[in-house]
Amino acid sequence: MAEYVHGYGERENIRLEDQSGILEELIHPGTGYDEGEHVLEAGCGVGAQTVILAKRSPGTRFTAIDISEKSLKTAQARAAGKGLGTVRFECGDVTALRFPDNSFDHIFACFVLEHLADPHQALCELKRVLRPGGSLTAIEGDHGSCFWHPETAASLAVWNAFIKVQRGPGHDPNIGRRLYPLIADAGFTVQDVSPRWVYGDAGKKQILDGMVNRIIVPMVQTGRDAMLKQGLVDETTWRQGIADLERSGTLPDGTFFYTWFKAIAVKRL
Amino acid sequence: MAEYVHGYGERENIRLEDQSGILEELIHPGTGYDEGEHVLEAGCGVGAQTVILAKRSPGTRFTAIDISEKSLKTAQARAAGKGLGTVRFECGDVTALRFPDNSFDHIFACFVLEHLADPHQALCELKRVLRPGGSLTAIEGDHGSCFWHPETAASLAVWNAFIKVQRGPGHDPNIGRRLYPLIADAGFTVQDVSPRWVYGDAGKKQILDGMVNRIIVPMVQTGRDAMLKQGLVDETTWRQGIADLERSGTLPDGTFFYTWFKAIAVKRL
Repeated sequence: MAEYVHGYGERENIRLEDQSGILEELIHPGTGYDEGEHVLEAGCGVGAQTVILAKRSPGTRFTAIDISEKSLKTAQARAAGKGLGTVRFECGDVTALRFPDNSFDHIFACFVLEHLADPHQALCELKRVLRPGGSLTAIEGDHGSCFWHPETAASLAVWNAFIKVQRGPGHDPNIGRRLYPLIADAGFTVQDVSPRWVYGDAGKKQILDGMVNRIIVPMVQTGRDAMLKQGLVDETTWRQGIADLERSGTLPDGTFFYTWFKAIAVKRL
Repeated sequence: MAEYVHGYGERENIRLEDQSGILEELIHPGTGYDEGEHVLEAGCGVGAQTVILAKRSPGTRFTAIDISEKSLKTAQARAAGKGLGTVRFECGDVTALRFPDNSFDHIFACFVLEHLADPHQALCELKRVLRPGGSLTAIEGDHGSCFWHPETAASLAVWNAFIKVQRGPGHDPNIGRRLYPLIADAGFTVQDVSPRWVYGDAGKKQILDGMVNRIIVPMVQTGRDAMLKQGLVDETTWRQGIADLERSGTLPDGTFFYTWFKAIAVKRL
């Protein structure tokens, strides 16, 4: 099993939940499934998106898989807590699925491809279990899309080090920009890829604080030990960089931009 | 007079016209002025935005100023060619205007602040000639927002060198992200700052080709001599970088993203 760069800590679960709340209105509009359809959520993690999917498509049957038993337990408890009985969770590897060909009406995968060593192979496997005419929705970030003000040397150094750490195990934190060719290369017909961005400034303080201090900074902090161990930043730069990032999210002159990409594709008939 | 980094060549005029066509639907929606109002366009250049403004607000009187007599002649000919008689052109410096206080109902400034050594001072001067309650619309790019696929070492080197060249004379090619604090610091009430982005891929070929091959590549080419002279890139990297950027705008796997920012602010009553 490949290593998940962000780890599986308690703080990370809170981050993933905060993130899903902020992101719901950004990435879920346009995604809805019919009654009786069977949808695979590939790489559900702690269920942050799962509960939103199930809430928005109450008559749909979901199978949510993840490679981590620990995350699945959290996801299961979360779905049970919300009384969502339409989701079945099971442990599974998106690159080697136990399901027969053409098993699902649709597939949903959010923040998964960026963490895989071979996203092309995963997409081919997902296509195999999708019925012809069924849709794939894939959502990924792009860390190279991120910028902020004030952009200090230390905050830039820490952010670039974080990208390197995440890129380390063969994964691509800048995968958003290549979702289109990646999905097309796996044989899907890509219908649309659209940026889903957030921009915060002093006039949009909730977005600014939520993005920087509840999503980005905690996410970067998951990479601290790896960055220091690999010598990508020293302890002083690390502290200054995190403090500077936090300042961008709080000062009256702070601004922040990041974009995810949402792709919708179809398996050819 | 400060040097305009892109120069005043014929190819540059074509680029500015191509750009304004692509950008009209991106940046002009939401901007419209009433009959009888008097609007200052600060830094009209070759009139690329001027003719769009005048077309969209046919009953409004525009005064369009620029520091370059040469650009003004082009702008004047363009407006005359379109039969736009509501615009008066004159030579002027946005940092030292000849107009009395409170002369204008509104001010429009597009791609101007990024080229000034002291945008704060210019905004204070613009506020002086704006009537209380009048609006300022400012639109600026942010070169740090730009990313593409495939992102080769050469294309990245050329793009970063271009940012350095443009930053050279005290100007800020990444000014978009700080429009909010910049305008607020000049004493305006900022009503809204919004990203106005373009994203192109093989499913949006016209946007991809238009942005990369008709806007970005010609723009970067205006900085060629300065980049080579300053030793920021060598001739081989230059050629490879431009070829790689062009490839991103044409190959089936090419993608491109860039965002401008549009700010709307008001002079307090």
